[in-house]
Amino acid sequence: MPGEPVRFTALPSGRTISADSHQTFAEALASSGQAIPADCGGMGTCGQCRIRFLSKPPDPSHVGRRQIAPTDLAAGWRLACQQPVVAGATVEAPSSGGRPQTEATGRQPSMPQRLRPGVEAFRVMLRPTDTWNPTSIDRALCRDMEESVTCSLRALRGLCDHHRKKETELSGVRRGSRILELRAGSEARRMLGLAIDVGTTTLAVQLHDLASGELLASEADYNPQRGLGADVISRIGYVRRQGAGGLDELHGLVSEALNALARAACNRCGAETTDIYKIVAVGNPAMLHLLAGVSPVGIDQSPFEAVFLNSVTSNPEVLGLHAHPEARLELLPSASSYIGADVVAGAMAISLGNGRRTELLVDIGTNGEIVLASGGSLIACSAAAGPAFEGAAIRDGMSATAGAIEDVTLAQDALLLSTIDAAPARGLCGTGLIGAVHQLLRAELIDASGRLRSVPAWGHRLRGEGKDLRFVLAEDPVSVSLYQEDIRAFQLGKAAIRAGIDTLLRSAGVSASELDSVYVAGAFGTHLKAEYALGTGLLPAIPSQRIRAVGNTAGQGAAMVLLDEDLRAPVDALARQIANVELAAVPEFAERYLQQMAFSRNS
Amino acid sequence: MPGEPVRFTALPSGRTISADSHQTFAEALASSGQAIPADCGGMGTCGQCRIRFLSKPPDPSHVGRRQIAPTDLAAGWRLACQQPVVAGATVEAPSSGGRPQTEATGRQPSMPQRLRPGVEAFRVMLRPTDTWNPTSIDRALCRDMEESVTCSLRALRGLCDHHRKKETELSGVRRGSRILELRAGSEARRMLGLAIDVGTTTLAVQLHDLASGELLASEADYNPQRGLGADVISRIGYVRRQGAGGLDELHGLVSEALNALARAACNRCGAETTDIYKIVAVGNPAMLHLLAGVSPVGIDQSPFEAVFLNSVTSNPEVLGLHAHPEARLELLPSASSYIGADVVAGAMAISLGNGRRTELLVDIGTNGEIVLASGGSLIACSAAAGPAFEGAAIRDGMSATAGAIEDVTLAQDALLLSTIDAAPARGLCGTGLIGAVHQLLRAELIDASGRLRSVPAWGHRLRGEGKDLRFVLAEDPVSVSLYQEDIRAFQLGKAAIRAGIDTLLRSAGVSASELDSVYVAGAFGTHLKAEYALGTGLLPAIPSQRIRAVGNTAGQGAAMVLLDEDLRAPVDALARQIANVELAAVPEFAERYLQQMAFSRNS
Repeated sequence: MPGEPVRFTALPSGRTISADSHQTFAEALASSGQAIPADCGGMGTCGQCRIRFLSKPPDPSHVGRRQIAPTDLAAGWRLACQQPVVAGATVEAPSSGGRPQTEATGRQPSMPQRLRPGVEAFRVMLRPTDTWNPTSIDRALCRDMEESVTCSLRALRGLCDHHRKKETELSGVRRGSRILELRAGSEARRMLGLAIDVGTTTLAVQLHDLASGELLASEADYNPQRGLGADVISRIGYVRRQGAGGLDELHGLVSEALNALARAACNRCGAETTDIYKIVAVGNPAMLHLLAGVSPVGIDQSPFEAVFLNSVTSNPEVLGLHAHPEARLELLPSASSYIGADVVAGAMAISLGNGRRTELLVDIGTNGEIVLASGGSLIACSAAAGPAFEGAAIRDGMSATAGAIEDVTLAQDALLLSTIDAAPARGLCGTGLIGAVHQLLRAELIDASGRLRSVPAWGHRLRGEGKDLRFVLAEDPVSVSLYQEDIRAFQLGKAAIRAGIDTLLRSAGVSASELDSVYVAGAFGTHLKAEYALGTGLLPAIPSQRIRAVGNTAGQGAAMVLLDEDLRAPVDALARQIANVELAAVPEFAERYLQQMAFSRNS
Repeated sequence: MPGEPVRFTALPSGRTISADSHQTFAEALASSGQAIPADCGGMGTCGQCRIRFLSKPPDPSHVGRRQIAPTDLAAGWRLACQQPVVAGATVEAPSSGGRPQTEATGRQPSMPQRLRPGVEAFRVMLRPTDTWNPTSIDRALCRDMEESVTCSLRALRGLCDHHRKKETELSGVRRGSRILELRAGSEARRMLGLAIDVGTTTLAVQLHDLASGELLASEADYNPQRGLGADVISRIGYVRRQGAGGLDELHGLVSEALNALARAACNRCGAETTDIYKIVAVGNPAMLHLLAGVSPVGIDQSPFEAVFLNSVTSNPEVLGLHAHPEARLELLPSASSYIGADVVAGAMAISLGNGRRTELLVDIGTNGEIVLASGGSLIACSAAAGPAFEGAAIRDGMSATAGAIEDVTLAQDALLLSTIDAAPARGLCGTGLIGAVHQLLRAELIDASGRLRSVPAWGHRLRGEGKDLRFVLAEDPVSVSLYQEDIRAFQLGKAAIRAGIDTLLRSAGVSASELDSVYVAGAFGTHLKAEYALGTGLLPAIPSQRIRAVGNTAGQGAAMVLLDEDLRAPVDALARQIANVELAAVPEFAERYLQQMAFSRNS
């Protein structure tokens, strides 16, 4: 059922936008062709779609309050994806380049200043042909473009039945001197690019306009390979057991799911997947192998050898991905079998360690990858964090969607829950887990060994015993509890990551206090409160203002390379620069890991 | 039914070859892996498969007598494809580079001295991986090849489940720094190339070993598009009427037929089409458009504009051709809408006009293409010769296969016929037609206007009247006659070609006597007697020893580029260098054409 018609004014264009009262500002602006870039696709999590109300700003949304600093809120800034349209409003919608920094997303990635996607749209006016000196369209192109270009078959086929007696305008897309696409007419060819982040658990795509750099749409979905194994090791095991058929199956699942995401993103802006001329993909090495249809067997067993780590260039068709027939796909390079292109691209996106800064990048997913920059060199390790940080493999766990408890406050005798979209609590996501553990630790409901214990004010919430021992967080409409075994899962994960961090610091001879910044990346990292990371001992003791949540740096890095061909060489160099520290080969690691199982206050 | 086992000795290898008495020397040598290059694939028409008997040479075959000069015959040279194996013989089978010149095939094309196909087979021994510094196979390749190579997905997929604990040998194929194919093991990868000549009437392929340059097999067949139009104009008309569906149909017919030829050629040497890494194709512009799936509409009507004339590089898959997934296909460049890549490649193959020689290339097919080199520049025209020279559209016509009359001798009152394979006469092929016309002219059975007339000795062979007026050549087992209307068809064709030649000479201000050489190319040209070409006025009056039959120069040129990547740029330059003379725009052409309809003795 449509709502009322509503009009508002958008700056800097000054255009009057007609919308439906059910729409948000983000939706109305996108419908009118002025989409605001937002990595999260309107979920309210990336904080990028900020608009400013020039007069009478409406009350900020729940999500907006968290994403936007109080001074910015006072200045009229709101999240366009969270605010319903307001009749008569005048809003300023900065383009991606102009969007302000937000505290919540920490340091913004250094977006490329230059737009050099490697493909270029062009138009050319062909002069008429002389009857007695006939030429061909391809030669006329060279003549009238005044350079030697070559045409792809696809471009030539686009000119079937093209007759001309007089001047004719052609529009096309080229890569260097090769013409990829050509049509009669003056309408500019649409030229899109797709950045892909293949996560073990989540697939995400960003669709960009390669002519403007604009982010047109983002889509994400679960990786359907989950059905054949929750983590990297179990999927490699599947291929080992099933052979080529298993590899084909996993490959087909991910490529079809990515095609569906690309189609959905294209639908959002009225484009076709054949408008996609460039694809850049990142992921961990095993996920990239499966996407490439290359066996990952070997990554899981000593000597942990991958088939490929370097970047791979291919026609997307070879991977089963739909795009323009002349499109080019780049799998970005990995550093080692467990430090993938996602981490390399992320380190590039945040310029990790530039200027010889001492910095740490912690990308928390099913695997936790840690990169330490110090004195101009980079070392990295991978720690098996388990799926707890993604809200998986915990009893009442869920992903970070509506109804997920994402924060817990224990004040006096009141238990306050924050849920995503302020929906009734349905489960606990990764950020909710760390929040709950932190609060229960503070209230001494969890002791240093991780055991749940009774405390007078909260005894009524402690229920069950043995493997059912739990702290009840919510009961209506569904019961959501933090179980003893969830705390154990959290301890295993945080111990792995923390021991990894400490091992890297020790390897480089750096103390935690010397860290200029700690970047926490990944969906989990987006909403992580520094206080919780410090309170639970996930991160070593450093001043909390040095901890920055940077969100999906992997996707950001992929998009950067998508938009700037000149970053290819630096990212290749970066991949080779990151030295691998194999934790299992470091004698102290196991000891640190056991130590970090406990919740000692940070030391 | 197998024959007797026979053994003979082949030089220079000195190997003893076991054969079956039913085999020819060519077949026996090919079975033993020492195939002799032969463009005609064993038809006895190219004269390339010459072998020399060191003692007791057998009687030369009928075909061998025609192909090999008397002095060479006396020296023991025979055609390997025509001679049944002889027990105990010792034969010298020179490799392609060493094969002698033959008078019959005129000047041999200048075969490339260098073998630079652009792809290269390689082997590499990988050093073992260190367990704690794991690497990947692609990085190990770069390390152990001591250069920065990149792998195609195909190459990476070839390494699935490749585990190594110790030194491992890999073999592969590369193009520049890109690895196209990679397998474990030391067996060298097979690396084949295919040269394609897409004729309006005939399709021909040559399969080469790109590692040695050796011609492994040749295959030819009719172009199945003939069913939808006998000539270029009618096929373009078909596309105009049927639209995209008609284009798809013609494209599908030619690509499927070429696939069948490629498969047959591969079968001959136990290879797969996936062993083909490079394809070079020539043809007239309309045929290349149809092969490319690009509409040829426009080539047939003023201003006679093609979609493309420049060379086109593509993955063969886009044209529906089967090859290695990383193979590259080149369509060589055309000069103008009627002077195709076949003519350009042919001109290159015979080094037309090099050293500022004054030379003429006449490629006679359904269209006759004529190129004149003089003073370092090249001009060309295309003349519609009609299908008579290919034995088509004449009443008792047939292609140049067994039983075709290919020569006629009228001596006193005896009529002698030469047929292909000495089989009973079944029809008249192109060379037979010109032979018959020439002989009947000499016997004054044809007058200067082209009319059949009665002459005492031959009156009994002149039969019928009106459109059935004919000169009977053979009656048993079937009747084969030269009809009055066949003579008219011949007159139209020879007038078009001769008027084209004269027009080019006039345009360049060159007289016929200044021509250093006239090269006659095409299947028709292979067996053309200079005497006939001069006697019928097809060629202007020049000393007969300056006329050279050079066979399929188009296919030779394609093979040269296949084997030498460095010829790409020269062939592109040559295509642009050949200036087009549009005969319809030359006022005197029509007059010359009418004049040349008559059979005046050459002037």
